[in-house]
Amino acid sequence: MTSTVVEVLGVNGGIGKTSYANNSLPQQKAILKAKPITDQAITSLYTSSLNLKTISIADLGCSSGPNTFLTVSNLVKAVDRVRKKLRRLSPDFQIYLNDLPTNDFNSVFRSLPKHQEEFKREMGDGFGQCFFNGVPGSFYGRLFPADTLHFVHSSYSLQWLSQVPKGIEDNKANICMAPGSPPNVRKAFSAQFERDFLTFLKCRSEELVKGGRMVLTILGRENEKPSFLIIELLAMALNELVSEGLVEEEKLNSFNVPMYTPSLAEVKSLIEKDGSFTIKSLEAFQVHWTGNESDDDDDDENIISDKKNGGYNVARCMRAVTEPTLVSHFGEGIIEDVFPKYRKMIGDSMSREKTEFTNVTVSLVKT
Amino acid sequence: MTSTVVEVLGVNGGIGKTSYANNSLPQQKAILKAKPITDQAITSLYTSSLNLKTISIADLGCSSGPNTFLTVSNLVKAVDRVRKKLRRLSPDFQIYLNDLPTNDFNSVFRSLPKHQEEFKREMGDGFGQCFFNGVPGSFYGRLFPADTLHFVHSSYSLQWLSQVPKGIEDNKANICMAPGSPPNVRKAFSAQFERDFLTFLKCRSEELVKGGRMVLTILGRENEKPSFLIIELLAMALNELVSEGLVEEEKLNSFNVPMYTPSLAEVKSLIEKDGSFTIKSLEAFQVHWTGNESDDDDDDENIISDKKNGGYNVARCMRAVTEPTLVSHFGEGIIEDVFPKYRKMIGDSMSREKTEFTNVTVSLVKT
Repeated sequence: MTSTVVEVLGVNGGIGKTSYANNSLPQQKAILKAKPITDQAITSLYTSSLNLKTISIADLGCSSGPNTFLTVSNLVKAVDRVRKKLRRLSPDFQIYLNDLPTNDFNSVFRSLPKHQEEFKREMGDGFGQCFFNGVPGSFYGRLFPADTLHFVHSSYSLQWLSQVPKGIEDNKANICMAPGSPPNVRKAFSAQFERDFLTFLKCRSEELVKGGRMVLTILGRENEKPSFLIIELLAMALNELVSEGLVEEEKLNSFNVPMYTPSLAEVKSLIEKDGSFTIKSLEAFQVHWTGNESDDDDDDENIISDKKNGGYNVARCMRAVTEPTLVSHFGEGIIEDVFPKYRKMIGDSMSREKTEFTNVTVSLVKT
Repeated sequence: MTSTVVEVLGVNGGIGKTSYANNSLPQQKAILKAKPITDQAITSLYTSSLNLKTISIADLGCSSGPNTFLTVSNLVKAVDRVRKKLRRLSPDFQIYLNDLPTNDFNSVFRSLPKHQEEFKREMGDGFGQCFFNGVPGSFYGRLFPADTLHFVHSSYSLQWLSQVPKGIEDNKANICMAPGSPPNVRKAFSAQFERDFLTFLKCRSEELVKGGRMVLTILGRENEKPSFLIIELLAMALNELVSEGLVEEEKLNSFNVPMYTPSLAEVKSLIEKDGSFTIKSLEAFQVHWTGNESDDDDDDENIISDKKNGGYNVARCMRAVTEPTLVSHFGEGIIEDVFPKYRKMIGDSMSREKTEFTNVTVSLVKT
């Protein structure tokens, strides 16, 4: 990949059947699982700042679709519940929705009037004003003036690196850090994550006010094993295309997904290395690939139907997030070849083993 | 029109041959003509605020296309020239680009990285950071938290009303306030402008800091005569379609363009009525329909070719700004019927009379 991630990365826009907007159930589940933590963080910020007339909230990597407003809506409602209990006047909300410039902000903005109406209806009289802003740009750089944000949220975004690490030519048939990757490749991936995550923390520490809060949910891994099954299955599907002569081996060898799933210990150690935040809580939890609690819960009809569908929904979800990256490297033609294979592999895997995402959620205070 | 303007209004998006982006020369000319006034205003703001670390600038009705960045770029460069002369450290810039939620913000955002590179290259070392935000919403309502803006700019936007005035059923064959409109229609249009402009001033006075500056350029009229030729020609073209049986008379009778071109005296009187701003300057100037200085200047090859083209470019410009409104009332089919006629009428008019837009530019200080 010669282009930078900022140019090519992103998810499928619009609201069609392969769009991210309609295929983001695990991401939604992650937001809901982390809700008690985000609620606690914003509530604590609000109750401890008596004179806050406007609360500035940034959601970094907001994407487009129902999840974009789910996060913000949860945060605003949490504050509103508390201010009603405390019989305070409502603050106003300055809400910044950030994603890469290629994100489908038009979809986000066009659904805004509807969401603003809902806010007014649900929150009733006395609810403050909610000002929405779109912020196009990479969060691996400054996005806001110094000391202006009160709350930063980011979910399912920080596992995306700012670029494919340099010096990983040996990764050949793998497309990410995998059990079969040579040690130098593993090192390059974790070093890239370290650089990127430290840059992220530095930028946010400049933008957040003292005492400001930040809650991050990152797609991570349970232990130190360098494995991320759902991407490895995509690699397997691409390798099949190579053996069928549909993709050149050279083309696959030079393809890597700029993604890294850190462990809980790595996240903790980098936050301590940066030094500008106190950790209020740090935990890992699991979300099934389908977005449901656990694949043991076979009573759930979604899971049964997913297994029957051969991982159809999960593959659609992965397609929504990987299609732009795949197209930019292999061209449009790859899509209809690779996804039927990928879907089958996902389905097989789901009926054979425990197929869950590990999420790392950390709640921080700017010191 | 039963829908509100917020839902239907807007210009043609994208970058195609009928897009606003490629058909906005008079708007560009207006920005350039007002440049000495905007430069003076922002420079004076900057030099009088010694400790300003971040300058917040909002461009209201930014649209999408080259003009979107022209305004902002002029403002940032004006500050940069002065800070170099004064050997001060550069401030950062928080830039808010506002338009209706239907504006093509995706185009704006995707061209951002290019503009940010240009800024860095032109301004050189020591140039502060420039943070861009898109703000979707009607400027006839609050868009920003209280006391947060230093500079507000708006060009060629405030002539658009928030809605078609009520009670103008008698306007029949006219589509705006025209010489043939009955007195109650004229009154309804000017009353709607008064309400809208006063709402605009109230909202901005809440958002601007004390001493903050605002420069507005509004498509206006030279005297109190209720005439706006370029829209009257569109009405003539639509009336021809009625006589040809292509459009129902009833359909045309219920169509009105939510536009009002105020005189200099009206703008002045409403600003005084609002009372929260001091007028630093107020002037009217002319821009030829083609975006060139004057139609007497026949040496200009654009104008000659425009007359030859029968007003082709002018019609394209008007199409870019009126197509969404026309389509929403008459349906898609109207477009290919009405614009050839409109183009011919514009061409005839240009070779017969003085065809200029009158712009009213006012520079204000928040008291």
